[in-house]
Amino acid sequence: MAYRAAVVGGSGYTGAELLRLLAAHPDLDVVHVTADSNAGARVASLYPSLAAAYPDLVYGPMEPAAVAGLDVVFLAMPHGASQGFAPGIVDTVAHVVDLGADFRLPADRYAQWYGEAHTAPELIDRFGYGMVELYRDQLAQHAHAAVPGCYPTAASLALAPLFAAGLVEPDVIVDAMSGLSGAGRGLKVGSHFSEADENVVAYGLLTHRHTAEIEQALTEVGGAPVTALFTPHLVPMVRGMNATCHARPTVDGLSTAKLLEVYRDFYAGEPFVVVADEPPPTKAATGANTCHVTVRFDDRTGRVLALGVLDNLAKGASGGAVQNANLLLGLPETLGLPTVGMWP
Amino acid sequence: MAYRAAVVGGSGYTGAELLRLLAAHPDLDVVHVTADSNAGARVASLYPSLAAAYPDLVYGPMEPAAVAGLDVVFLAMPHGASQGFAPGIVDTVAHVVDLGADFRLPADRYAQWYGEAHTAPELIDRFGYGMVELYRDQLAQHAHAAVPGCYPTAASLALAPLFAAGLVEPDVIVDAMSGLSGAGRGLKVGSHFSEADENVVAYGLLTHRHTAEIEQALTEVGGAPVTALFTPHLVPMVRGMNATCHARPTVDGLSTAKLLEVYRDFYAGEPFVVVADEPPPTKAATGANTCHVTVRFDDRTGRVLALGVLDNLAKGASGGAVQNANLLLGLPETLGLPTVGMWP
Amino acid sequence: MAYRAAVVGGSGYTGAELLRLLAAHPDLDVVHVTADSNAGARVASLYPSLAAAYPDLVYGPMEPAAVAGLDVVFLAMPHGASQGFAPGIVDTVAHVVDLGADFRLPADRYAQWYGEAHTAPELIDRFGYGMVELYRDQLAQHAHAAVPGCYPTAASLALAPLFAAGLVEPDVIVDAMSGLSGAGRGLKVGSHFSEADENVVAYGLLTHRHTAEIEQALTEVGGAPVTALFTPHLVPMVRGMNATCHARPTVDGLSTAKLLEVYRDFYAGEPFVVVADEPPPTKAATGANTCHVTVRFDDRTGRVLALGVLDNLAKGASGGAVQNANLLLGLPETLGLPTVGMWP
Amino acid sequence: MAYRAAVVGGSGYTGAELLRLLAAHPDLDVVHVTADSNAGARVASLYPSLAAAYPDLVYGPMEPAAVAGLDVVFLAMPHGASQGFAPGIVDTVAHVVDLGADFRLPADRYAQWYGEAHTAPELIDRFGYGMVELYRDQLAQHAHAAVPGCYPTAASLALAPLFAAGLVEPDVIVDAMSGLSGAGRGLKVGSHFSEADENVVAYGLLTHRHTAEIEQALTEVGGAPVTALFTPHLVPMVRGMNATCHARPTVDGLSTAKLLEVYRDFYAGEPFVVVADEPPPTKAATGANTCHVTVRFDDRTGRVLALGVLDNLAKGASGGAVQNANLLLGLPETLGLPTVGMWP
Repeated sequence: MAYRAAVVGGSGYTGAELLRLLAAHPDLDVVHVTADSNAGARVASLYPSLAAAYPDLVYGPMEPAAVAGLDVVFLAMPHGASQGFAPGIVDTVAHVVDLGADFRLPADRYAQWYGEAHTAPELIDRFGYGMVELYRDQLAQHAHAAVPGCYPTAASLALAPLFAAGLVEPDVIVDAMSGLSGAGRGLKVGSHFSEADENVVAYGLLTHRHTAEIEQALTEVGGAPVTALFTPHLVPMVRGMNATCHARPTVDGLSTAKLLEVYRDFYAGEPFVVVADEPPPTKAATGANTCHVTVRFDDRTGRVLALGVLDNLAKGASGGAVQNANLLLGLPETLGLPTVGMWP
Repeated sequence: MAYRAAVVGGSGYTGAELLRLLAAHPDLDVVHVTADSNAGARVASLYPSLAAAYPDLVYGPMEPAAVAGLDVVFLAMPHGASQGFAPGIVDTVAHVVDLGADFRLPADRYAQWYGEAHTAPELIDRFGYGMVELYRDQLAQHAHAAVPGCYPTAASLALAPLFAAGLVEPDVIVDAMSGLSGAGRGLKVGSHFSEADENVVAYGLLTHRHTAEIEQALTEVGGAPVTALFTPHLVPMVRGMNATCHARPTVDGLSTAKLLEVYRDFYAGEPFVVVADEPPPTKAATGANTCHVTVRFDDRTGRVLALGVLDNLAKGASGGAVQNANLLLGLPETLGLPTVGMWP
Repeated sequence: MAYRAAVVGGSGYTGAELLRLLAAHPDLDVVHVTADSNAGARVASLYPSLAAAYPDLVYGPMEPAAVAGLDVVFLAMPHGASQGFAPGIVDTVAHVVDLGADFRLPADRYAQWYGEAHTAPELIDRFGYGMVELYRDQLAQHAHAAVPGCYPTAASLALAPLFAAGLVEPDVIVDAMSGLSGAGRGLKVGSHFSEADENVVAYGLLTHRHTAEIEQALTEVGGAPVTALFTPHLVPMVRGMNATCHARPTVDGLSTAKLLEVYRDFYAGEPFVVVADEPPPTKAATGANTCHVTVRFDDRTGRVLALGVLDNLAKGASGGAVQNANLLLGLPETLGLPTVGMWP
Repeated sequence: MAYRAAVVGGSGYTGAELLRLLAAHPDLDVVHVTADSNAGARVASLYPSLAAAYPDLVYGPMEPAAVAGLDVVFLAMPHGASQGFAPGIVDTVAHVVDLGADFRLPADRYAQWYGEAHTAPELIDRFGYGMVELYRDQLAQHAHAAVPGCYPTAASLALAPLFAAGLVEPDVIVDAMSGLSGAGRGLKVGSHFSEADENVVAYGLLTHRHTAEIEQALTEVGGAPVTALFTPHLVPMVRGMNATCHARPTVDGLSTAKLLEVYRDFYAGEPFVVVADEPPPTKAATGANTCHVTVRFDDRTGRVLALGVLDNLAKGASGGAVQNANLLLGLPETLGLPTVGMWP
């Protein structure tokens, strides 16, 4: 018997990606999907890609009552919106999986990085931080999950083995590149095809909010406060994300071979992490719930270089969300999730 | 119990796409994959996208003996190669599904359009023409299938309802656009990123070989010889194909509304054809085994305009191949095949 | 001594392209540039590409008085806006070059295709139709010019030699593809990178307004009323346009070789038209004021196929505008205009 | 009177870009162009973009005698080839401008990074290092010039003001992204459209040869040995390059405002460097001979972040080459060089 699911905020890109993934999930049925300004529209009119699988599905309005009693409710809302919506459902549905930033950080860190007070701070502890590979145990103690951001997932999975083994100093540099889908479906000049195509541009210099999550996750793994300088760049593709990460070793005698072994051990048995010898291309993960990582030690400059790639909408958002839902529902973690990227 | 499958020629793009689709197929197991110059290489070294699903799979050499006894063998070889390979396996495996052009046309038409005599003409009749939606009955009488070309699939499905209803003259114009993956993984200047990106160029003027298939399929559907002027264009994307088709009506009183009704009736119950009101975007079908079509009647010029889009590697090749394999094996036609496109 | 020019509506893409081209023009100085909602902003803040050439230029408000007395004023406004602005300047500046659609068609045809009455019909005759290669003589009798649309330029230059020689029936099919820059800088879902990338979609089926211009230009060249069925498609690139055109011959004995000779004769001496043997790639014209054409006769289907490519912002808009300005000012037609495309 | 120029190796991308730029140069005439395997072919057959400007130009063979006596010879050959060709012309032509890597480094550094002994080490000192903005004085003492690599130009111009002012430690991290044209016209799987599109991938980890040039240029500017960890990435666009650079300050009291002032002072009067407040998009420089830079100080992590963008084929290769030729010939440095990027 399939579990009953809803997608709240199904007209944005993470919502559409949830509908794509759930159409292939054997044990999760989408029984309700909502939208804000698009309420009343057919899903297939916004996303012709969904016409065959959801020919008659219509976006309903954003009402908590409409999802009461469901097994899992995915919140795919703009950042800041789920802290207003979640209070109305956390006690009426079995599991909430929030794809926004609202329940990822403690209230004080949230206020510091997002520039506004959290309006439902008492709920934050009821959400586990859904970076499954690093927080699987903690997650098991929660009914609800906050899916991590895409950049934090790529960077943290790329660097985590180094921190777990205590091999690097708690001060990292992350230069990352993302496809445009990460900027969402909202209209802005920078997302216009003629502006973004054949263009690379850094943004959010020094202040990108995902910095807080990267620091939080690596602090958790390494046990000591970590500082990160994070610089994201938009690159002209739809999906895909690469994090190129730098750290200083704390020990002597490192080599690339040893580090790759550390990574293979750390991720042994993880179904969604591939440790690669060669620099991983983002295309390896397109449409899949995987993160590919590799690592190098540079004798010449005495630095460690770690790389992680993923699909920002899949493993970096909606795929990660389904992985979390599987865990919360007691299903096999891999159920319904593709591990093959679309190449070419 | 799963059927046992092989992919012969698994290092090209249709081969990689077969491996992607088969990884999600519940009743087909890939037990063997071969390559020519890449024999001995790990599949994941050519396609990092396949690393998680096929971590240890290695391309074997192209030997007929290696696939003997299997339930289904997919031939994803360069055009012209399968007529050399097929004779060695048609009697030793249950079903051959050929993705090449070798068994789609009668020997004389093959020689005319491909400029060389067919070397295994006696086998051609043992292959059904696998344009399932138009040849489903004929296909049921064959053990083997020849998967149609990508352009013929898009154009024929776009125009078929008109010919089935006898509404247009047997003389059509097809202007089509294809992403670069249709040109294969082989290296040539025209497929170079810096040449193909930000570029549209027509090719194969007057002589593209897929013309023969378009004419054959529409002749079959309409019952009278059809002539087509087919002009393909390369456009800067990886996957996706659009066929914009023109015909003259044979009857009075047409309207767009009537034609859309004809199309909806003709494709009623087809799981992989979507009849759309609006012009279908190629992205609707990316990664999916679907073809989206629409139609217009232009009062002003007295012409019929029909549009069809699909993913040249999915519905236009490897997805169509799996659909054929399902039918040949007696499985549900839709088994394991995605109907949701990747959008964005 | 340089002539003094203004760009009215300089914040859109044709305006920015004018500023790019005029920066390299030896005899035209930009002394004023205006914008609507962006008035007061630095040009370089919208277009960092213009920072080195126009470091301090600021968009002024849209006031006719500000351009009075100038030698040439380019109107790069949204379609429909210049009929409101032009009356205030046609008698106060030497030459107006309008890039919009307002002064390209007679008032009745304008009303028919644009769905609204023209508000300054008495001015239409004061503008020559600036498709220079076909209307050079008529243009010389006007003080002002209406730059043709991008699609009409590509299609008309591709087909004109056939009509001038009376070789084809006055009933054509044009399937065209355009990069996204043709849709302008305005924000809409269809121009969003994540929607438009890796996507081809037809639009404006049966009713695209440029149809009227194509029919008008070919009627002018051929001397008999021409009907066109025009279907444009958006393809994922910024600049570039291809028109694939079909016609029926009126005479026997055609061949591709003869047609190419007709084309070479017709365009002999034209500095901006290249008659090519091979199908011309749009990239040949990127950033240049050129149109590349070729032609074929298909014995098998008895049809003529003509192709034309250009850069929709250059030859198809702002480059054509400068070509017109050169003529109106009595300068060499080629002055300051690039003929080399940016490849790669 | 125009100077007479030749392009040796004119069939590659930097050669084609030289032909594009020289077509607009008032004082340099291309009198000879050579190619290796393409000798005998029309330039316009490889580059239709050059058809209008060079309709009849044919690639000649690579013979030193053919260029003897010319004013300037551009060598646009594969890396490693010009050290074989240059000895035959350095004394027979007035100026050689080499776009390859052969004359950029001392012989020992060349051998170390390029893995082979230099075959004409005695000529290296006769070439000035053509990073004009940083080596203008030294260049004036040489007859010949070695045009710097694209990555070194972007990274060195981004970081130079910091080193000139002694503000940072001599140990930097550079993460850079380049469009595919930097990989040249040669065929390889990684440059295939279907592989490179919708993909980002790091390459040359720890060992990219441009590291040596970055270290050399910053050492020259700062006066103390500099170490760089340089990691390039391919991103799916044709042209454009971004260098994101990290350094540690050596002094207290830095701020972004102060650093921007340092940059503005350092580059005051430079016609081809734009110091921007906002992160510069690569598109700002497309087709232009400009480099756009910005800088930040991050109080939180105590690091300096510097960004530089350019067009790898223009300022990063052929534009830089023309800038060098202008200087060597005593022409105005800016002659014939565009400063406006193509946007959109």
